[in-house]
Amino acid sequence: MGTAPETTEHILLVDCRDCPGLVHAITGVLFRAGANVISNNEYVDAETQRFFMRTACDGLADEASVKAEIQRLLPAGAVVQIREAAPRRVVVLVSREHHCVADLLVRHAYGELGAELLAVVSNHDNLRSLAEKFSVPFHHVPYGSLTREEHEDALQALIAPMRPDYIVLAKYMRILSPRFVATWPNRIINIHHSFLPAFAGARPYAQAFHRGVKVIGATSHFVSDQLDEGPIIAQQVIPMDHSYTPDDLSRAGRDIERTVLSNTLKLLNEDRVFLCGNRTVIFD
Amino acid sequence: MGTAPETTEHILLVDCRDCPGLVHAITGVLFRAGANVISNNEYVDAETQRFFMRTACDGLADEASVKAEIQRLLPAGAVVQIREAAPRRVVVLVSREHHCVADLLVRHAYGELGAELLAVVSNHDNLRSLAEKFSVPFHHVPYGSLTREEHEDALQALIAPMRPDYIVLAKYMRILSPRFVATWPNRIINIHHSFLPAFAGARPYAQAFHRGVKVIGATSHFVSDQLDEGPIIAQQVIPMDHSYTPDDLSRAGRDIERTVLSNTLKLLNEDRVFLCGNRTVIFD
Amino acid sequence: MGTAPETTEHILLVDCRDCPGLVHAITGVLFRAGANVISNNEYVDAETQRFFMRTACDGLADEASVKAEIQRLLPAGAVVQIREAAPRRVVVLVSREHHCVADLLVRHAYGELGAELLAVVSNHDNLRSLAEKFSVPFHHVPYGSLTREEHEDALQALIAPMRPDYIVLAKYMRILSPRFVATWPNRIINIHHSFLPAFAGARPYAQAFHRGVKVIGATSHFVSDQLDEGPIIAQQVIPMDHSYTPDDLSRAGRDIERTVLSNTLKLLNEDRVFLCGNRTVIFD
Amino acid sequence: MGTAPETTEHILLVDCRDCPGLVHAITGVLFRAGANVISNNEYVDAETQRFFMRTACDGLADEASVKAEIQRLLPAGAVVQIREAAPRRVVVLVSREHHCVADLLVRHAYGELGAELLAVVSNHDNLRSLAEKFSVPFHHVPYGSLTREEHEDALQALIAPMRPDYIVLAKYMRILSPRFVATWPNRIINIHHSFLPAFAGARPYAQAFHRGVKVIGATSHFVSDQLDEGPIIAQQVIPMDHSYTPDDLSRAGRDIERTVLSNTLKLLNEDRVFLCGNRTVIFD
Repeated sequence: MGTAPETTEHILLVDCRDCPGLVHAITGVLFRAGANVISNNEYVDAETQRFFMRTACDGLADEASVKAEIQRLLPAGAVVQIREAAPRRVVVLVSREHHCVADLLVRHAYGELGAELLAVVSNHDNLRSLAEKFSVPFHHVPYGSLTREEHEDALQALIAPMRPDYIVLAKYMRILSPRFVATWPNRIINIHHSFLPAFAGARPYAQAFHRGVKVIGATSHFVSDQLDEGPIIAQQVIPMDHSYTPDDLSRAGRDIERTVLSNTLKLLNEDRVFLCGNRTVIFD
Repeated sequence: MGTAPETTEHILLVDCRDCPGLVHAITGVLFRAGANVISNNEYVDAETQRFFMRTACDGLADEASVKAEIQRLLPAGAVVQIREAAPRRVVVLVSREHHCVADLLVRHAYGELGAELLAVVSNHDNLRSLAEKFSVPFHHVPYGSLTREEHEDALQALIAPMRPDYIVLAKYMRILSPRFVATWPNRIINIHHSFLPAFAGARPYAQAFHRGVKVIGATSHFVSDQLDEGPIIAQQVIPMDHSYTPDDLSRAGRDIERTVLSNTLKLLNEDRVFLCGNRTVIFD
Repeated sequence: MGTAPETTEHILLVDCRDCPGLVHAITGVLFRAGANVISNNEYVDAETQRFFMRTACDGLADEASVKAEIQRLLPAGAVVQIREAAPRRVVVLVSREHHCVADLLVRHAYGELGAELLAVVSNHDNLRSLAEKFSVPFHHVPYGSLTREEHEDALQALIAPMRPDYIVLAKYMRILSPRFVATWPNRIINIHHSFLPAFAGARPYAQAFHRGVKVIGATSHFVSDQLDEGPIIAQQVIPMDHSYTPDDLSRAGRDIERTVLSNTLKLLNEDRVFLCGNRTVIFD
Repeated sequence: MGTAPETTEHILLVDCRDCPGLVHAITGVLFRAGANVISNNEYVDAETQRFFMRTACDGLADEASVKAEIQRLLPAGAVVQIREAAPRRVVVLVSREHHCVADLLVRHAYGELGAELLAVVSNHDNLRSLAEKFSVPFHHVPYGSLTREEHEDALQALIAPMRPDYIVLAKYMRILSPRFVATWPNRIINIHHSFLPAFAGARPYAQAFHRGVKVIGATSHFVSDQLDEGPIIAQQVIPMDHSYTPDDLSRAGRDIERTVLSNTLKLLNEDRVFLCGNRTVIFD
């Protein structure tokens, strides 16, 4: 397994309409329950007037009653979650490119990923030996003569029983249908090889080359119905110059793609990412 | 005047179809003319098979004959330029924002710009005292009830007699007509407050806020007929997070806007920028 | 004056020994006083077990009693401050270089600095006209035949009556004595032109050139008795290559020096900097 | 093997005293030999007046005579090398940390490293299975009760027959003796986990933590007799803040360590690194 969680740490997550006294009220419940706050982040989004809070604490004995008491104190519609800090369960979808999944496999093997890799699933078979080197199950689900719907049904039949928290598209080059995406709301993560919203869609490095940009990037985001338009989680860029061919761009970009993706998984595994409309609030 | 050029340094610029032996042929002319090469850059664009060369040298006595001899050795259609290293003549167009023009004025005053600021021209009057503090002429050309065409005619009548090498749009918020742009081909430079091609057009920081990006940028480019689509010269980015309001973005962006713009002027003044289709080749 | 503060915003700063329930207790006082929390940051330093908190709020009516009540609830030795958000009073000390002070003057003139520049004080006279362009008083305090002690006495006699919150060394090239530093504990800020602790002391760009580094930097820090060893506030770096001469490094470094310095003043003016031994805790 | 070299590309490397006409002379030999120049870089170091040139070309038939002719035209003492572009032979020395060697193994397996990994050699046995997953020979050379001299003799007896071009210390935590270093002059590369010259020696992340820096870095350099003082090849940094523990720093640093190291190997494999005293000239 990827990581050894500290057994007694809990994460409290609150997402609700803002009103006075929220921090005082919530920390009061934790204090009376004997919890020791390790770290605390709050943010109020000015536009939507929503309040977000992430609290890491230990010594929390009775999660259910603490959660219920906090829920009772908060405005109607508040979303309250308490979970033990533990690796998230992740299925990786990939096509033919090795660099992102190789990075995840190495980090997983050495307990640095903070996630449990349940399986690598691909529409190609070429990465089987890589996954198996690191004792992570590999499943080949070829397109063959399947329709997109049939192929996604096959994926779904394979993945659903694994009960993943997240499905990570680590260079999965086929577009998922709204129907599939709706099955995993805000739980599919994609790494896109450009600085979105620049160069959405196919072949971003070729696009970047022809536009003559001086910086290229990579973007991780939640997958939504709109191609490459879901909420952005992380982005990183590197400088380039006129001498880079599209192939050079692609090679240079691979390094930031995998860095952005592993940073993203770390944020998700530590419950540091909130959704606020089509934006993300990230406590890092 | 902004800078004190080294009196004897010349810059040779070559842009021609690639063929074998170009570097040998060109450096041979310089060698026989007694020129001492200080630095030399070459690049062949694989896609267009064009050859670009920039050579800085001193000890060059007879520019005209050297230029003619090089021209004679090169393929038909070669563009050869030799110029003494000297500050380029620049007119700055600006609207109401001070930060870019203030930066240019300070650098100019202390001989760090590498350009001669001929004038600051604005459709507003609020930056007059700033320009005049640094003894650079300020001209107010208000829109008033003018049509765009009439306003541009007024600008043209003012600017043309100054014989600038470049017109720099240092946050000039009106779109120039193709007719005006055609008068100054590849000689109008704009600073755009986003990482182009993301967020072209108006209000890029508001666009960036609503897209929820994690990095913002600034881009300098040649002005062409297509809004914000001319060849990119320089780009820079800085990280941001969810807590930035559009105003925060705007403030943070001002620092990179002026850095990108002054870097761009340095490149142009030192003749380090070649055009290659809609891309730039930059020898830095 | 530099900025127009929002009149009703207050900043609460707490620095005390950590113990359970601090956030709950402090936010309770604010809540009962009718204050509306705008933002809140807390941090516990694991090594020293100290608790740091910065809270921005509005609607706070009776500062003195709120402060007293919070003080009463906290462990012995707690440092509690409440202040109205307002520009800090700053005196700038400078030698001959213009770039940092020019940047501060421009930002101050346009209300972007968040500080009130009381005066520019120099051991040289060459920057007088620059300061006066922006209507900031300039004072020339030459060394002449003075001892360091006498020169510092003259500075002290000039500066003390201005009652600055901070003295900013914007490229002041003389070392201040421990005696002078002790008069302004944690209130003198220096910008050093290297990535400290690399290249402390004199001529850091020449040192960087000879060591052949591939990145150069700038560092702002509190001035302490130990030269260039006070707590670091902000650092920034830029890449360089073999072709940079010491002069090129110096020129390139100026851009990051002034960026680091103005970012530092912003942090200080917004009370975002805490001291924790020889380290800083920064809520940004 | 790691990479498939383009069979007909040659790299010419020249390092000599500067004098007029060098580029013309050298490119003349290549032109007459029918070589087609793909790219060309030159640099003259102002301090030492040394000339450096790297030329990539194809179509070069008779390397030996071309080299001899160039040598004959250049000043006495010129170093001229012509080699076919081909993967360099590399032995990796490592202690217990996996991240750098894992990165090299993955890149090697997918032909992205540009080097041939001959073996992984360690004073510990824990990384054996990792190397063997990727079919690279692993050798355990334990200290046991050996003196440093005896241990290095064992290393030497193992490594020398492999005839490596470079020995790469990918987190090898023992200091090599001057005697061993002298056997491989300018052919041992180290990755140091700090922004040198800051935090040379042991435990740089702990040093960085206690100094309270806001940026951490990694540095690759040639190993010389002076610990961590050899010529720097590449450096990279990332921002950090007060909340990072030494462990967090170490984890964050691992990402830049491996990026810097793989970039360094790419530069070396493409013959882009020249030595100029204790500095490097890098054509990238």
